[in-house]
Amino acid sequence: MKTMNNGEKGRLYVISGPSGAGKSTLVAQLLKRLDNVYFSVSATTREPRRGERDGKDYIFVSRDKFMEMIDKGELLEYAEYVGNYYGTPAAPCDEMLSRGVDVILDIETQGAAKVMKMRPDAISMFLFPGSFAQLEERLRLRSTDSEEKIRARLAQARIECGRAEMYKYIIINDRVETAADEVEAIITAEKCRTVNRLHYLNGD
Amino acid sequence: MKTMNNGEKGRLYVISGPSGAGKSTLVAQLLKRLDNVYFSVSATTREPRRGERDGKDYIFVSRDKFMEMIDKGELLEYAEYVGNYYGTPAAPCDEMLSRGVDVILDIETQGAAKVMKMRPDAISMFLFPGSFAQLEERLRLRSTDSEEKIRARLAQARIECGRAEMYKYIIINDRVETAADEVEAIITAEKCRTVNRLHYLNGD
Repeated sequence: MKTMNNGEKGRLYVISGPSGAGKSTLVAQLLKRLDNVYFSVSATTREPRRGERDGKDYIFVSRDKFMEMIDKGELLEYAEYVGNYYGTPAAPCDEMLSRGVDVILDIETQGAAKVMKMRPDAISMFLFPGSFAQLEERLRLRSTDSEEKIRARLAQARIECGRAEMYKYIIINDRVETAADEVEAIITAEKCRTVNRLHYLNGD
Repeated sequence: MKTMNNGEKGRLYVISGPSGAGKSTLVAQLLKRLDNVYFSVSATTREPRRGERDGKDYIFVSRDKFMEMIDKGELLEYAEYVGNYYGTPAAPCDEMLSRGVDVILDIETQGAAKVMKMRPDAISMFLFPGSFAQLEERLRLRSTDSEEKIRARLAQARIECGRAEMYKYIIINDRVETAADEVEAIITAEKCRTVNRLHYLNGD
């Protein structure tokens, strides 16, 4: 990741989407494609899944540690989701933004609502699964969850999709490449917004 | 140009920018790249420049004919610019929009202001020259205009750039390819706006 510091601040992006919508795959694609972007790593109290690395996919912490982070005001947002806590450490995000680096938060809808309230200039995107059938298939293929948990996640997915309207953009994840194209286009378009280019009007 | 008609309406785009900002070259690039987009052809009372084709670059009409079009309400907007009239025939635009085709209007700032007022959902972009020096060079290279006209166009360019703030997006035309990338990204991003994807939320 390159950094640039022409005095311009980075922009804060929020991506939400139900478990099984393909967010992790999308984020992996975006990491390959995008320069000058920082993906916030969430802290969580849930158990690591197969292949997940501490500090990379999540910061895995105990419940006690998580409560301490809340108490110290170290989290930009936090929320409970299917029995576990998830939160966004504020310090690395704010540092990146001040260095002119765009920050992407991959967070669920409750946390996203909090961030949008606190940071009205945040650009929010909701990742929609191609279909609910596709979503269910993905959840079952993941196979680490019990049937009961899969059902809970599906019910949760429907609730979350019902909140998609509060987001600025909706990304359709039929194919991950197309979804990544869309996110990339949104990031480029947001750079072109007049409010972000006023320095051109005043220069010359 | 392909057309699609899944019940979705097209979106109306407005591009403005001073003479010499490179709009024609940009539009030519976009025509090559974009599917399902209709570039509105303006009617004008000005003389054709070398290489310009009637009905393709402009619809060249007499002053009398232009006044008749105004009287009959056939123009979406019209304006006077450096002694000539320019206007957008409404019928082809509205037909394309209703067929689900995006429409791009390449119009100057007065006309753009009218369109934005009448059609608040229009997506407006202002094409900024790389610099005023670059703009002056382009105007002189064009060489069909007298020194007096070049000066008038330069003065006009500064006035128009002062109106860039009323546009939603600012495109910087340092390189035409980058400028075309930006316009393409904006068109993709606008398709992803939640308001344009509500049908996904209601379906499955």
